[in-house]
Amino acid sequence: MQANYQEYKRQLQKIADVRMAAAVLNWDQETYLPSKAAGIRAQQLSTLSGIAHEMFTEKALGEILLTLIKKNAELSERELSNVKHSLEDYQREQKYPTEWVVRLSQTIAEAYHNWVGARENNDFNQFAPSLAKLVEMKREEAKMLGYKEHPYDALLHLYEPGLTTAEMTRVFDSVKEPLKALLAKIKSQTQVNDDFMREQYDKDKQWEFGLKLLKNIGFDFEAGRQDLSIHPFTTNFAASDVRLTTKVDEEDFNAMTWSCLHEGGHGLYEQGLPEDEYGLPGGEAVSLGIHESQSRLWENMVGRSFTYWKCHYSSLQEQFPEALKRVSLEEFYAAINKVEPSLIRIEADELTYHFHVLIRFEIEKALIEGSLEVAQIPETWNAKYKEYLGVEIPNDVKGCMQDIHWSHGSFGYFPTYSIGSFYAAQFFYYAEQAIPELASQLESGHCATLLGWLRENIHQYGRQYTADQLCQRIGGESLNPAYFLKYAEAKYKAIYHF
Amino acid sequence: MQANYQEYKRQLQKIADVRMAAAVLNWDQETYLPSKAAGIRAQQLSTLSGIAHEMFTEKALGEILLTLIKKNAELSERELSNVKHSLEDYQREQKYPTEWVVRLSQTIAEAYHNWVGARENNDFNQFAPSLAKLVEMKREEAKMLGYKEHPYDALLHLYEPGLTTAEMTRVFDSVKEPLKALLAKIKSQTQVNDDFMREQYDKDKQWEFGLKLLKNIGFDFEAGRQDLSIHPFTTNFAASDVRLTTKVDEEDFNAMTWSCLHEGGHGLYEQGLPEDEYGLPGGEAVSLGIHESQSRLWENMVGRSFTYWKCHYSSLQEQFPEALKRVSLEEFYAAINKVEPSLIRIEADELTYHFHVLIRFEIEKALIEGSLEVAQIPETWNAKYKEYLGVEIPNDVKGCMQDIHWSHGSFGYFPTYSIGSFYAAQFFYYAEQAIPELASQLESGHCATLLGWLRENIHQYGRQYTADQLCQRIGGESLNPAYFLKYAEAKYKAIYHF
Repeated sequence: MQANYQEYKRQLQKIADVRMAAAVLNWDQETYLPSKAAGIRAQQLSTLSGIAHEMFTEKALGEILLTLIKKNAELSERELSNVKHSLEDYQREQKYPTEWVVRLSQTIAEAYHNWVGARENNDFNQFAPSLAKLVEMKREEAKMLGYKEHPYDALLHLYEPGLTTAEMTRVFDSVKEPLKALLAKIKSQTQVNDDFMREQYDKDKQWEFGLKLLKNIGFDFEAGRQDLSIHPFTTNFAASDVRLTTKVDEEDFNAMTWSCLHEGGHGLYEQGLPEDEYGLPGGEAVSLGIHESQSRLWENMVGRSFTYWKCHYSSLQEQFPEALKRVSLEEFYAAINKVEPSLIRIEADELTYHFHVLIRFEIEKALIEGSLEVAQIPETWNAKYKEYLGVEIPNDVKGCMQDIHWSHGSFGYFPTYSIGSFYAAQFFYYAEQAIPELASQLESGHCATLLGWLRENIHQYGRQYTADQLCQRIGGESLNPAYFLKYAEAKYKAIYHF
Repeated sequence: MQANYQEYKRQLQKIADVRMAAAVLNWDQETYLPSKAAGIRAQQLSTLSGIAHEMFTEKALGEILLTLIKKNAELSERELSNVKHSLEDYQREQKYPTEWVVRLSQTIAEAYHNWVGARENNDFNQFAPSLAKLVEMKREEAKMLGYKEHPYDALLHLYEPGLTTAEMTRVFDSVKEPLKALLAKIKSQTQVNDDFMREQYDKDKQWEFGLKLLKNIGFDFEAGRQDLSIHPFTTNFAASDVRLTTKVDEEDFNAMTWSCLHEGGHGLYEQGLPEDEYGLPGGEAVSLGIHESQSRLWENMVGRSFTYWKCHYSSLQEQFPEALKRVSLEEFYAAINKVEPSLIRIEADELTYHFHVLIRFEIEKALIEGSLEVAQIPETWNAKYKEYLGVEIPNDVKGCMQDIHWSHGSFGYFPTYSIGSFYAAQFFYYAEQAIPELASQLESGHCATLLGWLRENIHQYGRQYTADQLCQRIGGESLNPAYFLKYAEAKYKAIYHF
């Protein structure tokens, strides 16, 4: 049996090598690729993913997996978990007809192209037909994959295994009114001043400061690096090779620092996955929600806390005396937590962010169940932004065409952003309980105990436990957004004085 | 028949995608890889080259090639040339038993490891056993590949198709005495002063100046880029994606500028290969010698010419006034062409360089024919350096262990460096004949006509013509080192006043 397991492992690691190579090419594409090479790079990437797909759908692999599942007595708990997950992945992959996969990737290429063009011309109609095709294909995909209650469940499952539309609805229902009430309270108070965040902040100094914070939270620069790209992201080619990217804006200090901490949080998770499980489910992230919980925890619970800046603010002031010398720590803390309803999701504050996600969730759900037509998206979008956030959408570029996700056919992805934030607050609460001296540690710049706790309770397991199992093991309960609400109420009460 | 040709092309381009992906991973390894990822990156690279090898040795590909060769009436000249080269490559690849290939790559890994260690300890004996194994395997390889006169021919052929040991011996025999005589004349004159080359030269300014020269010679930064690495190199992932690397030394202006022009020359060749022949022999460099002719032509015939610096020297002086304001163009020109026998090949001047290569050629030839034992390398090396260059080798790190090539099993590679320089002088002579205004163009910073001439006469053909055929087509004769001798005599006569 061990020989079979070794063969399974060898195969999966070989497939991982090809997928990781594709990830390197993708990373290079976003960071360093010369402009004229865009076409040939797309071809190289398509060849690699084709090869990885062929390797992963080989009949021999399926046979080994079935053998291992049938005679599993000799496997350890982790080995059995790997085999089960791989078999599930394998069987799911088999459900996709090759013709369909090729057609999807063509439709995505077309939709992405049209999305870019539609944005340039601020013309949703230019994007709508290919978006409609993608919605149709995603409805087909839900059927192929199967679901119990709602077709959208099948798509959610691709990003957040186990999450259902009903559960997501329950989660949002439980936070919607409290968040609305909190937002109303904030709006009734005097707005905080954050003008000084848009003074001149030297690029190189920002870059150095970002690296300093990343080192401080424990990102290992011998097992990773940071580069520049248009949109910040994290990717990994092994636990020992995790790549972060960020962007710098000399006239907006908000642009970089928290993106460093956010991507750094993703990166810490990837670096904490067990190295010897490379290529196996045990070496992979459990879900996008859990991934996002790690980024949000470091970005917000740590990186936007008063405690954290108690430690780092004076050195920040030293770096940027002109912009910050007359700004107190309290003023700075308020500014980095300013709440203000706005148009763009990726620029939103911690609180209003969830309305952005909720709106996308409601629209996606309706599209996939067939109760909303693509043509109706703009008016629906605009109405919901008016209803939830009280903002007027001036045009679709700043409205329903702002995100890349739909042009990539990623339906079911957005909800994981909120799930991640809610898990983050919950995990952070548990960590505070487990580490009584956490606040004083963070205040003195010591992040290692918190990181150790995350490594031990989350990172080391890869996909061995589901998101829900992880949460249950740590705190004895499932995802509970009440922790996020409590966290937000306390934070904003102090900042907005209500 | 065209359907067969299209299928052949499709297959080769797919193989190229995998090889190019490996090249991206290699480039990343030399430029940006975090240190802890060395092991996993080696594994990823090995998987990719394994896949490329499997794809290239597939029986079906051989059958298509044979069909195309048999019924070749419908193929164009270029298509037929592609098929012939691919068949030759395919048949050569078939000669290697898989067991042997795996053993070679293990032996190389071991030899490289031991070479690094032996250098650290300055102990040739630590390297000798694995080097002996490699020599033995290379002798086996020569037998497997076959040869007419000398086993070393088979190895030369891997880097410089068509070049034989006899021809290489003839070439060196024809230059050995004239170069010795020239060196003696130079040594009898007053040495030029180049102390100012080791003043303080700001890193960023050097980098910017290097980029400026690269743009000036025509390197297309929309189809390539330059990064830093420990040893400068050029690699390409398509004609539209050519990557140069360089290194900067703040205290030695010699370190970077000519490495930029050298790698830039390689890069111009890669960018000039026909894009629509991607993955096919028609889109590949013909030989290492021709590749080196392009780098040497731009580095030396252009980049170390008085004409070229007539155009660029004043702006260089402006960039580095402290180091250069009191240095005349004539003094600068003499300094960058200073001739001095030395220990290290890669730091050698244009003239003594060829003795470094000659020594390696003589040793390799003797090792492969079995007339020299690995244990005898140090004494042989030291004796030859004494004989040809009059220098004493203080230790093997600065002697026979200075180059990486042998630890990689690259026997037959060194001679292409000299071949390249000789071709460079010959091609430059032809270009001067074809472009009467070349000198005045270069003097005014106009390099496009020269680049156009190289594109037209060399780059566009890929592997369609052999090195010798290219040379014959341009000048009606084969490689003739007399052009190099004439060039060198004229240059050094002017600088050393004899």
